[in-house]
Amino acid sequence: MIEIKKERPVILVTNDDGITAPGIRSLVNAVKDLGDVVIVAPDKPQSGMGHAITIGVPLRLDKVKDFFDGAEAWQTNGTPVDCVKLAVDKILHRKPDICLSGINHGANHSINVIYSGTMSAAMEASIESIPSIGFSLLDYSIEADFTAAEFYVHKIVESVMKKDLDKHFLLNVNIPEGPLEVINGMKVCRQAYAKYDEDFDERLDPHGRKYFWLTGEFKNFDPGEDTDVWALEHNYVSVVPVQFDLTNYKLKTELENNWDIL
Amino acid sequence: MIEIKKERPVILVTNDDGITAPGIRSLVNAVKDLGDVVIVAPDKPQSGMGHAITIGVPLRLDKVKDFFDGAEAWQTNGTPVDCVKLAVDKILHRKPDICLSGINHGANHSINVIYSGTMSAAMEASIESIPSIGFSLLDYSIEADFTAAEFYVHKIVESVMKKDLDKHFLLNVNIPEGPLEVINGMKVCRQAYAKYDEDFDERLDPHGRKYFWLTGEFKNFDPGEDTDVWALEHNYVSVVPVQFDLTNYKLKTELENNWDIL
Repeated sequence: MIEIKKERPVILVTNDDGITAPGIRSLVNAVKDLGDVVIVAPDKPQSGMGHAITIGVPLRLDKVKDFFDGAEAWQTNGTPVDCVKLAVDKILHRKPDICLSGINHGANHSINVIYSGTMSAAMEASIESIPSIGFSLLDYSIEADFTAAEFYVHKIVESVMKKDLDKHFLLNVNIPEGPLEVINGMKVCRQAYAKYDEDFDERLDPHGRKYFWLTGEFKNFDPGEDTDVWALEHNYVSVVPVQFDLTNYKLKTELENNWDIL
Repeated sequence: MIEIKKERPVILVTNDDGITAPGIRSLVNAVKDLGDVVIVAPDKPQSGMGHAITIGVPLRLDKVKDFFDGAEAWQTNGTPVDCVKLAVDKILHRKPDICLSGINHGANHSINVIYSGTMSAAMEASIESIPSIGFSLLDYSIEADFTAAEFYVHKIVESVMKKDLDKHFLLNVNIPEGPLEVINGMKVCRQAYAKYDEDFDERLDPHGRKYFWLTGEFKNFDPGEDTDVWALEHNYVSVVPVQFDLTNYKLKTELENNWDIL
């Protein structure tokens, strides 16, 4: 479906804020000199979709014209994870050299790696043996300034593409808000144990029936100075290497040695 | 909202196949002698929802009467993860002693832990410091025989509730299909690197527009004899201890030592 120039790497770009989000344009802008960029993104915002896949409704996939200068773009009604699957099987007909997801409008540090559509798309690529990076900016606004983010995206992607990467290579990169000169550099971190302390806003609809909006306050329960939350609080770009083997090996050994019902 | 008898443990039960699925009735049946069971489940099937949360539409939460003999039950339009959040904040007003998810109609071994609504509900509980177990039977059918599954669910939950558990304790349990006598016992395993080799079934709608159904063939790329897939192929119940820290510590060390742009 698409003509790939063999001499340039193929960069698959996706996101979870939808194809019209400013963040994905910044991502394309930041890496377009590093390879042939192909965009496959949701046709509407898909934040908080986690690793959802679409199995109950048919998937649509439509070409988007004249929206990204010089890059082929497609939109789908599917989730971010669906985007990666469709891109590989129905558009590229090969694995891209790297998959980039984002730039997300808002943080995806700490436990948010699990809820995030941005990171789930990147993880899907990693599962499919495509090195991958998710990028997020700590600014939810549609007016967010992506200048510093673009600088770090280019720096990281250029460096990573020169490496001899493990096929499951996966990074979760979060960028503090603000201009480039206030950012202190990059730190490789572990995922903090920090999460939303949830609450629900309880309301009545016009028919007197209760409904709820998920809300909550973000809390860091992790005192470590080697975490992504710590790095971001100190104005560093946080880089968390991520894996999809969720086995708890410590508990595995404990159970193997001590569980009387085995 | 609910009266908790202090002397009995509180068992929160949820699933992703929806409140009317036979699997959740089997789960309640298997553990009702071990504590006060409260059910909070989706009002419709939510398979493949991964760790999705509902942020764009209002959540509903309605009591279900006379459906589970002797246990309070609630249904919601939310995802499996929403069920856990709503149960804790809006129904129990405390953490349950344990959260059980399932019994899923169909396997959730290997990489499926990431896509599975069943395991995402269990993981959400674990993140919220509630020990939790997800159960799945390797039989998709509505007519599935849950007799052997109920035996192992009871055995595992009874044993686990006697332990002094880590607050993030989380297991992914898969049960082979067939009668009890063909099952060889239980094995504690690691998550296999096995996944669906995806494909899309391409069709035309009555208006001549293309659409796609996600499909694919399951393949095990992992030669290990210590994996969940190996155990299930040899008719063992697989028990994989699961964690939500996705940091790849090996890659973290590599990058810290060798990455020239840091």
